[in-house]
Amino acid sequence: MQQHETEIRVRYSETDAMGFLHHSNYLSYYEVGRTELFRSRGGDYRAMEEGGLFFVVVSFDCRFHRPARYDDLLRLQTELVKVGAVKLEHEYSVYRGDKLLATARSVLACVNREGQVQRIPEDVLEATR
Amino acid sequence: MQQHETEIRVRYSETDAMGFLHHSNYLSYYEVGRTELFRSRGGDYRAMEEGGLFFVVVSFDCRFHRPARYDDLLRLQTELVKVGAVKLEHEYSVYRGDKLLATARSVLACVNREGQVQRIPEDVLEATR
Amino acid sequence: MQQHETEIRVRYSETDAMGFLHHSNYLSYYEVGRTELFRSRGGDYRAMEEGGLFFVVVSFDCRFHRPARYDDLLRLQTELVKVGAVKLEHEYSVYRGDKLLATARSVLACVNREGQVQRIPEDVLEATR
Amino acid sequence: MQQHETEIRVRYSETDAMGFLHHSNYLSYYEVGRTELFRSRGGDYRAMEEGGLFFVVVSFDCRFHRPARYDDLLRLQTELVKVGAVKLEHEYSVYRGDKLLATARSVLACVNREGQVQRIPEDVLEATR
Repeated sequence: MQQHETEIRVRYSETDAMGFLHHSNYLSYYEVGRTELFRSRGGDYRAMEEGGLFFVVVSFDCRFHRPARYDDLLRLQTELVKVGAVKLEHEYSVYRGDKLLATARSVLACVNREGQVQRIPEDVLEATR
Repeated sequence: MQQHETEIRVRYSETDAMGFLHHSNYLSYYEVGRTELFRSRGGDYRAMEEGGLFFVVVSFDCRFHRPARYDDLLRLQTELVKVGAVKLEHEYSVYRGDKLLATARSVLACVNREGQVQRIPEDVLEATR
Repeated sequence: MQQHETEIRVRYSETDAMGFLHHSNYLSYYEVGRTELFRSRGGDYRAMEEGGLFFVVVSFDCRFHRPARYDDLLRLQTELVKVGAVKLEHEYSVYRGDKLLATARSVLACVNREGQVQRIPEDVLEATR
Repeated sequence: MQQHETEIRVRYSETDAMGFLHHSNYLSYYEVGRTELFRSRGGDYRAMEEGGLFFVVVSFDCRFHRPARYDDLLRLQTELVKVGAVKLEHEYSVYRGDKLLATARSVLACVNREGQVQRIPEDVLEATR
């Protein structure tokens, strides 16, 4: 299925007192990965939200293998691994050079402004093919 | 004028590689101070937003005197120092014990959903008196 | 085993354009939960770090059931569910009133400043009993 | 004096319930601007920290002119406007297209691990010329 790679440089504000990238920031990085994967297929998540549909995170399973530090230039690989009627599943891998730092898997559901689950619209599905 | 004091404990995720509270977090703390000051006067900022009015930050002048660290229990003093037709000005001081760590001054403007400047509604002004 | 409950109020800076608490902030909340659980047992994580030992996050499995919003007062339950020679496992539940919003499970490993896995020191184990 | 321009795309996690980039994130963006300005002159802030010297923020004066939104591609201009024996002053401007969104000015001081003010080392001054 679809895969996309993007680079992210660790910001000072994202580090913690241990001197490492704080693990909560990976969730923001993974979101950047989804945005860029979707954009690379002609999708526009912002337009989708303006149309009243949203993807909310249902679950996130994260593994942290090695720490990242300030100013590290990371490679984030984002892959769409499953497309359902109302849900998308992604897998993520973060590398510094050839070292694997972190992996994760997420499930997102399509909802409307009231939070009710909705079928993923056809043009979004289009961009997932 | 009005003053309010609230306690905030520094979270690990808010520290940086220097071992200090990252300075960007003070802006979030000051926002907590404004929320709590407003609540202490019977105001409800969330209800105001649901009614279509918002306070946006126009300017923020911050001074950082001494660093804070993980798990420090800070005292945040928030004071409303000026009330105009469309703007509010606040001053902030952060203490650890009797040591002054940081001070700031902000200007906020009342806007509607389209970002147009609006007169501050009477019930909000009420809560500022 | 040990359990602890602490209250956390959602900050404006933690919300996102959907109007919800952004899911990445739950990881910071869970860290607050661990700190307070440890403190409630007489532990002092900051002192442990000053002594050169750290707990790093190995994995985090998160489920998001219902969204939280600005100014929601949340109850976070943190439970230590497993204590190994070098690892700790925690479970977390976040409630608003009696509604369950999110759950998670984490594994942490004890490491030294060089990132090498270490036995959890006796006084820390003491606080886990 | 020196000037540098870098692009930053607004992340979803950086937005708030108003639908705008939360103002606290500008401080993180400005830090990215300083890092990239310094790198463009052959400096290496990470190496400087590893050598035991740090720049801490003394003051930050911020003006917010127009809001930014999710996925906006911003241009950040960072300029070193004053170099003293122990302090650096920077000015920042954030644009979306030709619209000016925010401006700021900061003062940083050079300190050692104990937080004592130090003369800026010669090789760092070199990179400021």
